[in-house]
Amino acid sequence: MSASNTSPRKAWKVNASIVAKRTSNPIRAIVDHIKVKPNANKSMISLALGDPTLFGNFKIHESCTEAVSKQLHSYKSNGYPPSTGYLEARQTVAEKFTIPEAPLTAQDVIVTSGCSGAIDMCIGVLCNEGDNILLPRPGFSLYQTVADSKGVEVRYYDLLPEHNWEMDLKQLESLIDDRTATVVMNNPSNPCGSVFRKQHLLDFLAVCERNHLPVIADEIYCDLVFSGNEFFPLASLTKTVPVLSVGGLAKKYLVPGWRLGWIFIHDRNNIFDAEVRDGLNSLSQLILGPNSLIQASLKDILHNTDPAFHTETCAQLEANAKLSTDILSKIPGLKVIVPQGAMYVMIAINVQEFKDITNDIVFTEKLLGEESVMCLPGSVFQCPNFIRIVFTSPPNILEEAYNRMAEFCARHHV
Amino acid sequence: MSASNTSPRKAWKVNASIVAKRTSNPIRAIVDHIKVKPNANKSMISLALGDPTLFGNFKIHESCTEAVSKQLHSYKSNGYPPSTGYLEARQTVAEKFTIPEAPLTAQDVIVTSGCSGAIDMCIGVLCNEGDNILLPRPGFSLYQTVADSKGVEVRYYDLLPEHNWEMDLKQLESLIDDRTATVVMNNPSNPCGSVFRKQHLLDFLAVCERNHLPVIADEIYCDLVFSGNEFFPLASLTKTVPVLSVGGLAKKYLVPGWRLGWIFIHDRNNIFDAEVRDGLNSLSQLILGPNSLIQASLKDILHNTDPAFHTETCAQLEANAKLSTDILSKIPGLKVIVPQGAMYVMIAINVQEFKDITNDIVFTEKLLGEESVMCLPGSVFQCPNFIRIVFTSPPNILEEAYNRMAEFCARHHV
Ligand SMILES: Cc1ncc(COP(=O)(O)O)c(C=O)c1O
Ligand SMILES: Cc1ncc(COP(=O)(O)O)c(C=O)c1O
Repeated sequence: MSASNTSPRKAWKVNASIVAKRTSNPIRAIVDHIKVKPNANKSMISLALGDPTLFGNFKIHESCTEAVSKQLHSYKSNGYPPSTGYLEARQTVAEKFTIPEAPLTAQDVIVTSGCSGAIDMCIGVLCNEGDNILLPRPGFSLYQTVADSKGVEVRYYDLLPEHNWEMDLKQLESLIDDRTATVVMNNPSNPCGSVFRKQHLLDFLAVCERNHLPVIADEIYCDLVFSGNEFFPLASLTKTVPVLSVGGLAKKYLVPGWRLGWIFIHDRNNIFDAEVRDGLNSLSQLILGPNSLIQASLKDILHNTDPAFHTETCAQLEANAKLSTDILSKIPGLKVIVPQGAMYVMIAINVQEFKDITNDIVFTEKLLGEESVMCLPGSVFQCPNFIRIVFTSPPNILEEAYNRMAEFCARHHV
Repeated sequence: MSASNTSPRKAWKVNASIVAKRTSNPIRAIVDHIKVKPNANKSMISLALGDPTLFGNFKIHESCTEAVSKQLHSYKSNGYPPSTGYLEARQTVAEKFTIPEAPLTAQDVIVTSGCSGAIDMCIGVLCNEGDNILLPRPGFSLYQTVADSKGVEVRYYDLLPEHNWEMDLKQLESLIDDRTATVVMNNPSNPCGSVFRKQHLLDFLAVCERNHLPVIADEIYCDLVFSGNEFFPLASLTKTVPVLSVGGLAKKYLVPGWRLGWIFIHDRNNIFDAEVRDGLNSLSQLILGPNSLIQASLKDILHNTDPAFHTETCAQLEANAKLSTDILSKIPGLKVIVPQGAMYVMIAINVQEFKDITNDIVFTEKLLGEESVMCLPGSVFQCPNFIRIVFTSPPNILEEAYNRMAEFCARHHV
């Protein structure tokens, strides 16, 4: 063989692909640069991770564990499910979430590897490289990671803290052009903890309608709403705008590690029928969906979990939200935007009121270094001079963290 | 807002992305076109699905079920693992698979959503759109699905049935040019059931070495080999060629539905260090890896499963392989290429010897219509005039199917 002489490949030089290089997580990019060490004299408290299971105060209902145990011991659910999920799983999800205003059948449901997998598929099916996508700012960072990975241009529309983080719809509409493939909206919101009013959703849908823009609605925190607020599934408010709604077990059932998510195809005018449904089916074949045991347990999990479990989860979250708001809003220099749902609160840092804190990243670093309290700087959500707190830790830990924050702020206040 | 008048978006027209459109599964594309119905007078027997769990004769060891049950009932493994997997899981896999000739540490292991997820990431990190990739023919169809999805040009190298399906290395080398990003090799092979000799692997590595071509080695059937054959991990035979080896629990532990796979980064000369390791880490963040319960159970599964379980699985597979070879090789018109491992056998159809069977797809259709026996036409593996049989059904069912095939062939023989 003479290829050894003619081969143009003279040396070992193996690069990562362009796609891999442009796939990056803004949280890691910023947090990994925080080189400050926690204060060795104080116990570490992290309010940074959106994982409610860390302390044991939030945990899945025993009946769900037993549902999985049953499947496990049946030895009947270890094989390959179809790539879009077991038919029974899809049916179960459809039955659980169908409502007259936004009907669902098994055909409208795709079971995915977490809600992250659902987001990846939805952006993947709607957007070409070179298209643009409208994303919320502040917003869940995975949207940008996925869009960047696919070479889709990100255009941010603002959420307005002074209006309970509602979308700046005028600005949103001004961003739309003929290469805008879709808009992602997230309700209830990570990182804002906001829940949109019905009228606001209707106004949003009017913009989409006018501009013939399909929507990806990230509704993974559906139902995690506090008294005085109500969650409206976006698809229930439109008869015309096609909506891909994504969700999953992670938050409501407190099992993010189980990696079970879903896509609902809401499309009453058959706009997705031409290509998008097939496209989603095709994309599902690449990695073949979530764990079979969890899929097989969905029927029991969704239909047989005591409703008191959800009431109790919400009540606990709401109590923690109130505790957070009560303490934090008394701290000079901070401004709490009162959360309405989910498990997050965003807090504005009035940098002018501090001697030596110039922005949210400095705030985060100093707080970690002096008080061993970790939260995420708003910059990771494209929202500087805010910090995000996850309020799922037990109340005594939250109190301890907030008291340390109060001392910290007092020390640095002008 | 005036956008309603100026918007270039006048109608609902939502297409699927180019990526979604070019993502297709050749098995579905061909099998879904088989419109023939099974013979209503004969029970259906499918020998088409590579899922050993369907009948209960192959099933996971009880100790593995208990390992998962333990994690489930601990309520401690429901949270988010890191995107590359729990450190303990990576460590466990590294310990299990490290050998002096191809050492592994936790840093060299990424835990993935099935071996499919591993393949998607490995092709994704090494290949740009417009590059080409060398794939085996016949070969597992997902390689092509993933490559097509990413716009990577597929170049097939042949496996030679007359040489126990060894690679045609001369042809393989002739396909390499400066846009060849990687070569996928699969040993033991789906669909061939072949196990490569050590010398053949060394010859293959010499080609890669000469051409500075990194390898993706799909070794998911490692250890499923029959007496007289031996499996050599590709990475153990080279000190220079960088290898991404992929595998998982699916086949050896008989749990394809659990979706737990892995990537081993074998790179003794730090060729992947510059970019590829980071690239894999980045790609892992898109959907966040496999189910946490299974990850947490890996230590027990990999270290505490009675070795007799694997011996027994192999013995059963080997007995089924022998039964298949014995019966099928006596059928005029068919030629069995004797399997050496895995759970598949490829059978050549000598179409000249049949009156009315012009190719493998016609064979498959008529066999289904007349005998209610389903197998896959070689065309789905780019290998016309072969059929693939999965021999994991219980022996009595295999015998029944093969007897029907014998009658079928006799009927259609010239
Ligand atoms: C808004 C939002 N969407 C999606 C996800 C991802 O969900 P999953 O863990 O099911 O992938 C999260 C997780 O934090 C989230 O906050
Ligand atoms: C050669 C080969 N690689 C990879 C896979 C996929 O493995 P998994 O089910 O873990 O995704 C298969 C499944 O049949 C296979 O045959």
